[in-house]
Amino acid sequence: DAAVLDWSARPDCLVTVDMLMEGVDFTLDTATPERIGRKALAVNLSDIAAMAGKPVACVVALALPQSGGYELGQRLTSGLLPLAEEFGVVLAGGDTNTWQGPLVLSITVLGEPTGRGPVLRSGARPGDWICVTGPLGGSLLGHHLDFTPRVREALALHEATTLHSLIDISDGLAADLGHILEESRVGAVLQAESIPITPAAHEMSRTDHRSPLDHALADGEDFELIFTLAPDEGQRLLARPPAGVAVHHIGDVTAEEGLILRHADGRRVSLASLGWKHPFTSR
Amino acid sequence: DAAVLDWSARPDCLVTVDMLMEGVDFTLDTATPERIGRKALAVNLSDIAAMAGKPVACVVALALPQSGGYELGQRLTSGLLPLAEEFGVVLAGGDTNTWQGPLVLSITVLGEPTGRGPVLRSGARPGDWICVTGPLGGSLLGHHLDFTPRVREALALHEATTLHSLIDISDGLAADLGHILEESRVGAVLQAESIPITPAAHEMSRTDHRSPLDHALADGEDFELIFTLAPDEGQRLLARPPAGVAVHHIGDVTAEEGLILRHADGRRVSLASLGWKHPFTSR
Repeated sequence: DAAVLDWSARPDCLVTVDMLMEGVDFTLDTATPERIGRKALAVNLSDIAAMAGKPVACVVALALPQSGGYELGQRLTSGLLPLAEEFGVVLAGGDTNTWQGPLVLSITVLGEPTGRGPVLRSGARPGDWICVTGPLGGSLLGHHLDFTPRVREALALHEATTLHSLIDISDGLAADLGHILEESRVGAVLQAESIPITPAAHEMSRTDHRSPLDHALADGEDFELIFTLAPDEGQRLLARPPAGVAVHHIGDVTAEEGLILRHADGRRVSLASLGWKHPFTSR
Repeated sequence: DAAVLDWSARPDCLVTVDMLMEGVDFTLDTATPERIGRKALAVNLSDIAAMAGKPVACVVALALPQSGGYELGQRLTSGLLPLAEEFGVVLAGGDTNTWQGPLVLSITVLGEPTGRGPVLRSGARPGDWICVTGPLGGSLLGHHLDFTPRVREALALHEATTLHSLIDISDGLAADLGHILEESRVGAVLQAESIPITPAAHEMSRTDHRSPLDHALADGEDFELIFTLAPDEGQRLLARPPAGVAVHHIGDVTAEEGLILRHADGRRVSLASLGWKHPFTSR
């Protein structure tokens, strides 16, 4: 049957789904079931944050291996529940299955917008500042499992200023900013030296010889927020950011379409979408 | 990100999720992708029917094989969309992935209760009639893929009479009636000769030598409704059922717990739960 949620005080319903698959999004020999369960919820909470919404409830569908499936299901759930509690999310129902295949988790989260409504990808305007909420790159070294979804940050920003557009970084800075640009029919110039880069991106750079900036632009699964806002609002925000919220001004929206990276020496490089694409082999 | 649904005229939100897995719920060599996509939505609509609710929107998560995944995804969706349209369900979003594993579909449906509220499993009372909306058994011969979820029937019954409890038959008559009995803390006596049986159950019986009644009690995936109501309401309903709704009175709720099958010759058999259980091997 279905779960019943009281939605009487909530005008809109935000809904998002993400599926994680063993061997693609995680491996059971490199991550504990608790971390995997937590991540499966966290990526959905990040999608609600990307609308500046409040998460309310979730349902969880599992395909568990027959051997050891019961214990695995328990451990996934015990990893997920503390995060649900931290963000006030009710586990409203689920569908637990077993099979001979690899582990699959599919979580759907319902949320509600604030009184100011949701923030969409489509509202960026030429002249807007482009900002991010934290350093990027190298998430594969651990952050992709243990990140904290930027729900509180999105709500605080939505209250403190007027956001024109908003998205979370799952595919990578270039690809997700690309979604904003496409849906807003605008372009952007990013200042290379302004993009905050994680220590993990530097660490990966030492072994794979891709630059730390490359990692910050393309790795994905940072789950920080990209947002745009009017320059005067941006200046006000930088001067007095909400408590606990980091704001980095990394570039500006342009009327001309396309995504340009400007280096400190003045070189301008056009960025094709560097993010991850679904690798359909039949296309 | 998330989809935004206008919920302002809807006090409650019903939410349900079902995951279907290749090799467990279907095989691609015995069912077309279109039928599989349709079923994945239909089982969820049946869950909304089980609350006498109206389905509103769905989100679809897919794990597709890399080879041929794009075409398969298109065919699953084209099987699902006509059913969504028939029941006024908006495809609000999704998450499409590829991997080396078997096909997995996870669909979440959001719905709303009618003005009379949802009907739960927990309201059956001693003396209630137990009714079903159609013949049972043998669904494996095709019905489990091509059934029509009883959304319209549930709404019509909810409007025409006062339902005390309601559930859809996914695990089997005995198992799903068992859920009502357990949550209502009551028992039941079923009249064997009153249980409507499908031609498919008779057909399977000829080869596997299980009785047609056994199939009707235990096969599952009938996706008919079981409901209970006061005897006088039941008599009124039988005399004038809503247009297009079949009503079969198959037994009665008892104060004494347990589920009894009474045969025409007076024999009484206690039914343990005959339905399907999750086969965890580690338990």
